[in-house]
Amino acid sequence: MTALVALDRLEAFCQGALAAAGADEPTATAASRAMLHGSRLGVDSHGVRLLDHYVRVIEGGRVNGRPTLRFREGFGALAVLEADHAHGALAAYRAMDHATDLASRHGIGAVAIRDSSHFGPAGAYALAAAHRGQIGLAVCNSDAFVRLHDGASRFHGTNPIAAAAPSGGEDPWLFDMATSAVPYNRVQLNRSLGRPMPEGVASDAAGIDTTEAAAVEMLAPLGHAFAFKGAGLAGLVEILSAVLTGMRASFDILPMAGPDLSTPRRMGAFVLAIRPEAVIPRDEFEAGMRHYLAALRASPTREGARVLAPGDREWAEARRRATEGVPLDPATEAAFAALARRFGLATPF
Amino acid sequence: MTALVALDRLEAFCQGALAAAGADEPTATAASRAMLHGSRLGVDSHGVRLLDHYVRVIEGGRVNGRPTLRFREGFGALAVLEADHAHGALAAYRAMDHATDLASRHGIGAVAIRDSSHFGPAGAYALAAAHRGQIGLAVCNSDAFVRLHDGASRFHGTNPIAAAAPSGGEDPWLFDMATSAVPYNRVQLNRSLGRPMPEGVASDAAGIDTTEAAAVEMLAPLGHAFAFKGAGLAGLVEILSAVLTGMRASFDILPMAGPDLSTPRRMGAFVLAIRPEAVIPRDEFEAGMRHYLAALRASPTREGARVLAPGDREWAEARRRATEGVPLDPATEAAFAALARRFGLATPF
Repeated sequence: MTALVALDRLEAFCQGALAAAGADEPTATAASRAMLHGSRLGVDSHGVRLLDHYVRVIEGGRVNGRPTLRFREGFGALAVLEADHAHGALAAYRAMDHATDLASRHGIGAVAIRDSSHFGPAGAYALAAAHRGQIGLAVCNSDAFVRLHDGASRFHGTNPIAAAAPSGGEDPWLFDMATSAVPYNRVQLNRSLGRPMPEGVASDAAGIDTTEAAAVEMLAPLGHAFAFKGAGLAGLVEILSAVLTGMRASFDILPMAGPDLSTPRRMGAFVLAIRPEAVIPRDEFEAGMRHYLAALRASPTREGARVLAPGDREWAEARRRATEGVPLDPATEAAFAALARRFGLATPF
Repeated sequence: MTALVALDRLEAFCQGALAAAGADEPTATAASRAMLHGSRLGVDSHGVRLLDHYVRVIEGGRVNGRPTLRFREGFGALAVLEADHAHGALAAYRAMDHATDLASRHGIGAVAIRDSSHFGPAGAYALAAAHRGQIGLAVCNSDAFVRLHDGASRFHGTNPIAAAAPSGGEDPWLFDMATSAVPYNRVQLNRSLGRPMPEGVASDAAGIDTTEAAAVEMLAPLGHAFAFKGAGLAGLVEILSAVLTGMRASFDILPMAGPDLSTPRRMGAFVLAIRPEAVIPRDEFEAGMRHYLAALRASPTREGARVLAPGDREWAEARRRATEGVPLDPATEAAFAALARRFGLATPF
């Protein structure tokens, strides 16, 4: 990590580069907003390091930088978004906005997204619902990296589940997990650092657990000895994101990394919003969230440890980065410099 | 396990005992149906071993054996069920029936359940949706048994997440997991057998992992070194089941085991149903499920291992038990004999 860069400069650079690559304003804004969610909250795997990739897939044609998004409203509370191979962040933000509108009218609302693409940090879309006072849920499958329980091939994507809830004045409760034991970029990081992997999170080509980062061919599902649970959760994400939408199963999705950057990947996703006032008065819901979170944060800990609510670490990091800026890894800094030269933009650092 | 008892004899005995304890017909039928779900599929922790407990809580007054269930329909697709301290199975089956009705009209439907009680196997209610051709989801919190990640006290319940989906002619995809690493009855079983616990699934009173069953004071959340994920999933269940409904948080729920068996426990739960035809044609959805499940079952395995879809093991066990009967453990057999004597019923074995 070499440079510390202000959030607003990063966001402007992302928007400029995406526009220069051919993205329309809604696409550049949504993709930048999603990357900044990652970079602001310290989820750097889903932060601005993705910019170079997004530029390449828009230029390549895999992602449509000027899509026409269309909602189908056959049923009241569950709409379908035909995303026209849009950037996944544009599709997912639009879908969650629509889901919260539906929930405002029907108590609950959901949008099944078709013909989308990589959407980055799932938590960004769940959080968008919480910022509108609702409980949000967002899931998406992805190309296969994760074996089944007792499996020996890449089957599911890292298939994240993200949820967020407003908590009455405080930062929202924000939970964003991959259903794999660890993210794939942990493997890449440990390879480059020559570090071993933790026990039981990754396997070699025969499906046998390995701690040697260089030998890792696939990730394990969440759950260690009980990884059938992680695999089942990945399956739930798969059914909602891909089967329900008629989109590609993880094992059928073209690899994110290429080499083909021109064929749309036909990815699905699913977002859901719940309006608390459909069940109990707003003040009771918020008092309930405060009661739950206060009890959680005051809960006894193991010696020397801390107990955190989902999001606590991320919100603390966001406050730090708002002041100090975002650290850029060397590869991202180099990619930004190249993009700046190519598009005639000022670098943000 | 001493006796093998036919499913229909078990179900009739459960209904008879519950009726004798004061349950009305809907309560006795729903509670028996839920217990038989567990006993049929091999989930014996949530099978007929619960009968004796249910008789005691109906007699004690904690559970209202003759409740008046009332739906509140303020919003279109999300209803509230005021369950009048009903048996949790009656409330949850009614709620899921209603959620599927709502989903038939609105594409998605959900019911937030208030003033309910222990509902047994969450999978039973998700499955009820799948049997109506929909994707079902059911969650419920419970009294606290599970520490937080790095926590040292019982905080969440085992807070199950269950989901089911129709798969086009085959047995439904059926997934039912506790968000704890293992169920609490695994501790009780290993204690009575003098067996050690698996690594990393249970902790002593200081929150330190232990494999000594006798020293176990709380369970670990799912995820081993990454148990913040299991704890976060438990939190999502908690928010949907308890906070959204205004019901008791896990750490505020009276212990299931008593000694107080007369005070209603004010438990919430949440069920959700999605109608696939709101998104894509039925035949495409079913073809997608078959494609997904066929790929899963044909997926390469570790040497000597098998890969199963969620539910495969349970459906195979259900077929075996339909022929051979259900094994009863000695404690359950003794409790049945005592209930038979007390209520003047014939034992089912």
